[in-house]
Amino acid sequence: MQKISIRNLSEHIGEEITLQGWLFNKRSSGKIKFLILRDGTGYLQCVYFKGSVSEEVFELADRIGQESSITVRGKVKVEPRAPGGYELDATVLTVISEAHDYPITPKEHGIEFLMDHRHLWLRSTKQAAIMRIRHRLIKAIRDFFDNNGFTLMDPPILTPAACEGTSTLFETEYFDLGKAYLTQSGQLYAEAGAMALGKVYTFGPTFRAEKSKTRRHLTEFWMVEPEVAFANLNDDMDLAEEFLEYIVQTVLKEREEELKVLERDTTLLQNVKRPLPRITYKEAVEILRKNDIDFQYGNDFGGTDETIISNQFDRPVMVHRYPAEVKAFYMKRDPENEKLALAVDVLAPEGYGEIIGGSQREDDYNTLLKRIEEHNLPREAFEWYLDLRKYGSVPHAGFGLGLERTVGWICGLDHVRETIPFPRMIYRNTP
Amino acid sequence: MQKISIRNLSEHIGEEITLQGWLFNKRSSGKIKFLILRDGTGYLQCVYFKGSVSEEVFELADRIGQESSITVRGKVKVEPRAPGGYELDATVLTVISEAHDYPITPKEHGIEFLMDHRHLWLRSTKQAAIMRIRHRLIKAIRDFFDNNGFTLMDPPILTPAACEGTSTLFETEYFDLGKAYLTQSGQLYAEAGAMALGKVYTFGPTFRAEKSKTRRHLTEFWMVEPEVAFANLNDDMDLAEEFLEYIVQTVLKEREEELKVLERDTTLLQNVKRPLPRITYKEAVEILRKNDIDFQYGNDFGGTDETIISNQFDRPVMVHRYPAEVKAFYMKRDPENEKLALAVDVLAPEGYGEIIGGSQREDDYNTLLKRIEEHNLPREAFEWYLDLRKYGSVPHAGFGLGLERTVGWICGLDHVRETIPFPRMIYRNTP
Repeated sequence: MQKISIRNLSEHIGEEITLQGWLFNKRSSGKIKFLILRDGTGYLQCVYFKGSVSEEVFELADRIGQESSITVRGKVKVEPRAPGGYELDATVLTVISEAHDYPITPKEHGIEFLMDHRHLWLRSTKQAAIMRIRHRLIKAIRDFFDNNGFTLMDPPILTPAACEGTSTLFETEYFDLGKAYLTQSGQLYAEAGAMALGKVYTFGPTFRAEKSKTRRHLTEFWMVEPEVAFANLNDDMDLAEEFLEYIVQTVLKEREEELKVLERDTTLLQNVKRPLPRITYKEAVEILRKNDIDFQYGNDFGGTDETIISNQFDRPVMVHRYPAEVKAFYMKRDPENEKLALAVDVLAPEGYGEIIGGSQREDDYNTLLKRIEEHNLPREAFEWYLDLRKYGSVPHAGFGLGLERTVGWICGLDHVRETIPFPRMIYRNTP
Repeated sequence: MQKISIRNLSEHIGEEITLQGWLFNKRSSGKIKFLILRDGTGYLQCVYFKGSVSEEVFELADRIGQESSITVRGKVKVEPRAPGGYELDATVLTVISEAHDYPITPKEHGIEFLMDHRHLWLRSTKQAAIMRIRHRLIKAIRDFFDNNGFTLMDPPILTPAACEGTSTLFETEYFDLGKAYLTQSGQLYAEAGAMALGKVYTFGPTFRAEKSKTRRHLTEFWMVEPEVAFANLNDDMDLAEEFLEYIVQTVLKEREEELKVLERDTTLLQNVKRPLPRITYKEAVEILRKNDIDFQYGNDFGGTDETIISNQFDRPVMVHRYPAEVKAFYMKRDPENEKLALAVDVLAPEGYGEIIGGSQREDDYNTLLKRIEEHNLPREAFEWYLDLRKYGSVPHAGFGLGLERTVGWICGLDHVRETIPFPRMIYRNTP
């Protein structure tokens, strides 16, 4: 399967080779044509000298437009001044499919235009770099759990009931069974998995039919959710910081080149190492007040609040023990203060906000039943979930990490819409 | 993070250790109680001698029911006769949560009862083994592509149009943009990815609102779909056989123990090695006729047909060049016979049917446009897909492998419903 590609040119120095790809860019300098070839693995400058190649080839090099698919042949030369460090002393040029008037030119385009042409925009250097970083991050996430004894448990996408309220759910008719809803989280199912296999994780698409039009919101996004039996909130925070260090440091190491393409200043990312600071919700509120924010104790933090809090630290900060009212029904209360949930949010630096939300789960049958009733959730839909507290309940905890927000943070992007191949937002479900 | 678990007991022989888990089973022999502990990583026989432990512990061991969560303490002993090869000479037993009347007992239960209790059924030895095999298969699939230069491109789940007709789609309201549909395949998006990154794969949940109630159908299932630029049907078949060999041999090697739990005869699986036989559709029809099947040339194969064809071979068989009418609009026709599509299906042995479907894609703009019109598909929805043929079109090919059918085949299961944690079928979307 190993074909010659631009990425492995170093193995072919001095050789006469053939490459296939697309014309990324070109320029001319009198009797020389420089064609930049991209093949999906990298970029290569192919040099055609007027006297050395036929008239037809030289004219063809002049005529073909950006993104034409081409075959080139020539000798690989080391050329430190060329992008990538190599150059092709080219002799042959044939066209597979000639393109003209490619819509995305090196000039500036508006974001809606680029989003309408997302299927082509992905070919740009920056978008391709983001996709390669996204892929490597996903691999790091999976490797971390696979290498630490977790079993993957894919949760269902079509679910009979809402995990956290019904107002932000996509719904569909499900044969004769009435409505089904697109999942917002695999967590409840992961809990069943943890009781079976000890340590599990889910990793799949989740959905929010939320009318939020911010730079942090997608209607469809991927979430990874580990769940661990015999774990408390402290264990959960230990796991979260070990996990974050591993995935961020791995991507920094393995995608250095792509981060350079994005001109990402990685100084703060280099700091993502254990231990991460841990502060209580109460301490976070004090930080806000010291920064002249008139924050009401008991409220949830907004985006601006999160930025102010995280700006106090040189790495992600864990905020734990939130007022139970702003957190989900399934979270266990702090035995030392029943008004607090044993919850933790991890806030990323540089204004990227919450990237992890986790908690120890309520493991007492009667308390959980009471919470379900207090939240007016349909008991019948949660009978199976209550069963987990009826048969061999154990302390357990887990968290969810939003993939796209994490990609946005690592890449230093202004908006999550560039972190996923084909983003879905309130005003967009195409292409 | 490394806690002592049953899986790593070999590192603790002779040591006094503490383990937490669930009571899987127990038996009594006069003055000895044998408690089988499961902790998600394995099973351990804990032996309590009447004289050596307190009366309370001995009574507790007698009283607690299946799936009670417990803590045990004792010394690890090598015991070749015990399941797993070790035994705990136990002295301490404490209960975390006492369970009684656990619904799933060692006796036989009907399938609907087990499916209603899927959240508990996953704790059984067989179901846990299937989940561990599923996980390892997923990892093998991802490793194969990650190690061969492919970039992962997660396709959208909510799509504006149907890939292969609208009759079997789940639909949902999408804000003010009208209807959106749950994806049936990421392929069209993977094609855009291949033009950007050369070799890509998608791997995510796909949906069919099909009223099929067979042992091979789920309404929600995972599919992996590689797509390669500059590849033809032969390259596609080369890739498929290399891929199948890798994933099957890896799972056989890495999940030997779990396959033994399932009592899987792996003889035929051991054969999944290159080269796989390649026959044309026409040759497959001849096989059916030789086996006294009155098969009409031009039809698609049914489940029984697939079984008869695959039974002629000692490993999966690739059937290629189908009549274009039974295949999708985007498949390229055979230049040597325009009535044939450059398609390939891979049929698994032992009656497991089609596990891979692939093809070379139509790469000519005008021909693809004609096909879209012939199939009465809305041109507007496919403009972006046509763009891939307008700007630098290249020969390209790919395939899709259904994860659950592959898990079913490797595990030797009668029905795909056991291959996914929480199966969705026409009559079931719970728990």
